[in-house]
Amino acid sequence: MEKDLETLRHSTSHILASAVLELFPGTKLGIGPAIEEGFYYDFDLKHKLTPEDLEKIEKKMKEIINKNLRFERKEVTKKEAEKLFKDQPYKLELIKDLKAKITIFKHGDFIDLCSGPHINYTKGIKAFKLLKLAGAYWKGDSKNKQLQRIYGISFQNKEQLENYLKNLEESKKRDHRILGEQLNLFMFHEVSPGSPFFLPSGTIIYNELMKFIRDEYKKRGYQEVITPLLYEKKLWETSGHWEHYHENMFNLEIEKRIFSLKPMNCPSHCLIYKNKLYSYKELPLRIADFAPLHRNELSGTLAGLTRVRKMSQDDAHIFVAEEQLEDEIKDLIEFERFIYEKTFKFNFNMVLSTKPDKFMGDVKLWNKAEKLLKDVLKKNKIKYSIAEKEGTFYGPKIDLIVKDSLNRDWQLATIQLDFQLPLRFNLTYEGKDGRKHTPIMIHRAVIGTFERFIGLLIETYAAKFPLWLTPIHVKIITVTDKHVKYAEKLKKDLESNNIRAELDDRSESIGKKIVDAHKEMPFYIITVGDRELESDNLAVRTRDNKIMNIKKDKFIQETTELINKRC
Amino acid sequence: MEKDLETLRHSTSHILASAVLELFPGTKLGIGPAIEEGFYYDFDLKHKLTPEDLEKIEKKMKEIINKNLRFERKEVTKKEAEKLFKDQPYKLELIKDLKAKITIFKHGDFIDLCSGPHINYTKGIKAFKLLKLAGAYWKGDSKNKQLQRIYGISFQNKEQLENYLKNLEESKKRDHRILGEQLNLFMFHEVSPGSPFFLPSGTIIYNELMKFIRDEYKKRGYQEVITPLLYEKKLWETSGHWEHYHENMFNLEIEKRIFSLKPMNCPSHCLIYKNKLYSYKELPLRIADFAPLHRNELSGTLAGLTRVRKMSQDDAHIFVAEEQLEDEIKDLIEFERFIYEKTFKFNFNMVLSTKPDKFMGDVKLWNKAEKLLKDVLKKNKIKYSIAEKEGTFYGPKIDLIVKDSLNRDWQLATIQLDFQLPLRFNLTYEGKDGRKHTPIMIHRAVIGTFERFIGLLIETYAAKFPLWLTPIHVKIITVTDKHVKYAEKLKKDLESNNIRAELDDRSESIGKKIVDAHKEMPFYIITVGDRELESDNLAVRTRDNKIMNIKKDKFIQETTELINKRC
Repeated sequence: MEKDLETLRHSTSHILASAVLELFPGTKLGIGPAIEEGFYYDFDLKHKLTPEDLEKIEKKMKEIINKNLRFERKEVTKKEAEKLFKDQPYKLELIKDLKAKITIFKHGDFIDLCSGPHINYTKGIKAFKLLKLAGAYWKGDSKNKQLQRIYGISFQNKEQLENYLKNLEESKKRDHRILGEQLNLFMFHEVSPGSPFFLPSGTIIYNELMKFIRDEYKKRGYQEVITPLLYEKKLWETSGHWEHYHENMFNLEIEKRIFSLKPMNCPSHCLIYKNKLYSYKELPLRIADFAPLHRNELSGTLAGLTRVRKMSQDDAHIFVAEEQLEDEIKDLIEFERFIYEKTFKFNFNMVLSTKPDKFMGDVKLWNKAEKLLKDVLKKNKIKYSIAEKEGTFYGPKIDLIVKDSLNRDWQLATIQLDFQLPLRFNLTYEGKDGRKHTPIMIHRAVIGTFERFIGLLIETYAAKFPLWLTPIHVKIITVTDKHVKYAEKLKKDLESNNIRAELDDRSESIGKKIVDAHKEMPFYIITVGDRELESDNLAVRTRDNKIMNIKKDKFIQETTELINKRC
Repeated sequence: MEKDLETLRHSTSHILASAVLELFPGTKLGIGPAIEEGFYYDFDLKHKLTPEDLEKIEKKMKEIINKNLRFERKEVTKKEAEKLFKDQPYKLELIKDLKAKITIFKHGDFIDLCSGPHINYTKGIKAFKLLKLAGAYWKGDSKNKQLQRIYGISFQNKEQLENYLKNLEESKKRDHRILGEQLNLFMFHEVSPGSPFFLPSGTIIYNELMKFIRDEYKKRGYQEVITPLLYEKKLWETSGHWEHYHENMFNLEIEKRIFSLKPMNCPSHCLIYKNKLYSYKELPLRIADFAPLHRNELSGTLAGLTRVRKMSQDDAHIFVAEEQLEDEIKDLIEFERFIYEKTFKFNFNMVLSTKPDKFMGDVKLWNKAEKLLKDVLKKNKIKYSIAEKEGTFYGPKIDLIVKDSLNRDWQLATIQLDFQLPLRFNLTYEGKDGRKHTPIMIHRAVIGTFERFIGLLIETYAAKFPLWLTPIHVKIITVTDKHVKYAEKLKKDLESNNIRAELDDRSESIGKKIVDAHKEMPFYIITVGDRELESDNLAVRTRDNKIMNIKKDKFIQETTELINKRC
């Protein structure tokens, strides 16, 4: 968030607090910062705030803003501060931890403990809106009292606010959790928190994506494996996961030995690599795996498909000789462009994270690798930024971030170099010189986590998926019972051409059946009536309710072609 | 095992014991029963027996047999028995638990505590062989002393023995664990006992089988789902697994709640059923799931792909209204015939297990269902036997058993009716009468467990898989370096037609390359030399080393057709 906007929003939160104090005298104030998206203020008051109260508070805030009061900064001593906030116990608690010199901000009669900065005059707030109410523990600790939090947003002009609110409404409409339920794509159940059940329609999307990736793997020299999910502690000790990650794994005891459900595939693939001896001629070795992974996310943080405990990735690990690294990175960037640019036409950029202070390994290799990654990004004319020192300790990485139609960021693909794990597992290959060398390992996922990617697809397309991913390609609707036979034959003809078809032959009115069909969002609706029985033509209705007449054979041919081209 | 053979083998074990006593006086005798395959006898002696000893013992046994001694039965009192066996502490321990009247058997000077029956004269043993040595705890309890066990086999004639030994040798050659390692199909690792790692070649077979089943699902109205693996204890309490099966599940604690890794898919599918309301018109509902399952098998019992802790099945649960049951069973039997008869041409029979004494539910429904199952089996002219009272408490079932080329049984497909689980989960549908009814649930798997089925395929075909399942369809071998370019082009042409091809362009002799290629067991080997560069013909070598010359286009067309037809 830019600095000006942060200042504006922080100032708006002061206005909010002063309005609440005027309307509900005696309210005890918590804190009121600007946040990533807007601001909030926490209050301790007996009255349970309602949405109607928010309207009243907004009105009061407008009055205060219109007075065009000045935000005044003052420095006071600790003693003076304690006197000023003698009726505000939460502020007093905060003052205790402060040093001798304390800043306060004042507008009108309202004073807040605050280091600023703020805007000069209240009229600087040109547009604001209170958004929602929530409960929040004082200092975020559930042992403390729960306060009432009001969230809001403000902007430098009304147009920006309107855009923001429109976007907010749109994003609610596109919420993958709501659309997922409406379209029966997936469900959740309390007996397995954070673990989606993909229902038949959702499974179609999941499997189509997996098939897509598998088709690419064949062309790109990947080899798929199927691996166990439970591994003994000593594997995690070798990989370093036990030391750094064991609290994020699900651990259990079997016959007095500790096992963990794997959160990542890398150690499994190191074991597979170790099963054989390699010459440099056999590298790069590209091992792909769709194994389900489990991560012990706190139940409170779980959210739809984007924060889950069980997930699968289009995960692969590539073992390369150092001299093969550049070509491999080029191919990987090309693979990502193929998926994000060519297939999905997403808007994205990349982030290169470089050597952190606590890096491990040979500094020369680090520098060479970073230069190589930059060169490949430049040659590919990819928009990228550098996150200085934000690489992992084991190697630099490139992340791909999609900006969706609502301007939100989704981190998806990743390419991570790893100079350490091959050492930990003592992996080697025979080089041209006949000696043993350590391969570089590349952790990479292109679509990333299937669950998250499907969440993105739902929200980006508002569930109007491209044809090949649409669960129902064609919904066939009969006008009356005498059209059922033809409709059944049509369904079979479509299906034998790999077009997913469903038939609604209920004895309902055609109008009702069309309305019902639209709710399921098929790509096409075909109504079968007398005219269809007499000719080769089909009446095809698109998702946007456009109707076209087309010869049956032509429709099948064109649709199959589009599906095969993944359009 | 038939009764006569059991008697013969039991008698052979007595001969074995008498021979050991003659060769190693002072040996203490354990027990020596006939078993499923042959017989054994346990001995306590200081000398560590070797394979050479087995030859000496066999020679001594032949001497004893040739004396044509009579097996004499005698009844003695407990006291008399204690006197007879005063030097045999294990026998004395057994005598303690016996009643007053005790039978013994005698041949020559050898006496054993035994209730018989035995053959009349030792010469009745026409053919025998000692097979192997093993350690075994007295009474199977690891707290007791470990004895030395000798396994053997005997028959009524020499031909049978020769056949048996040939089969045994053949089955060793076909052992899926050995072939699996040789062909890099899968590996095991101590950090994940009982959990195969399918390597790239094994994964090809696994995925081809899955694709095959998925193609059938599309035609047969199944809907696939993807489900969580971890479920809270309360789900297992509802399903009854907690009471009856929790020791076979892997259990762990997450945020103070107990979860288990699922050993079966049925409860997941009940949750999915409950997510929606169904009318009888929407049934049968066929929910398919390839989720990995985990079962807590003791580490000592794990064996290759046939006894594993982690597995996947072509599992599905079908929810039907009672009046739909017959048609559904017909379709299921047809599905099984399609796989076992038409596709794999296996030799199989079925076993119908009927109502046990401790059955649950409506006896009328049980009787009706059993009659229905019998009728369908009869109408299909399927070889089947009845296992009286061996159904589960929740419903009757039909199992399919494949007899492999070595006459061994593999239990694979299953169809189990379940009248109970829908009640436990309170599943209902609206019937024609507008009222709520309880559906019948069918648990069924056609190929069964993938791991086990792949084990069967390896052993039945001795890894000479049908074309569509063979990991390498074509291995291309270059004669010299100047043929590499053509070979690479050929590889691409094959691959773009979905023929799996590998290229060996090493600068080795053609002879060595052919020998190496045969070890990988590709379906075809194509050598590329000068002649191929000049014409459209290919020199194709089959797995049985037959060579054929065929036009390239024709080869591609024919091979693709065979693969698509799953030949």
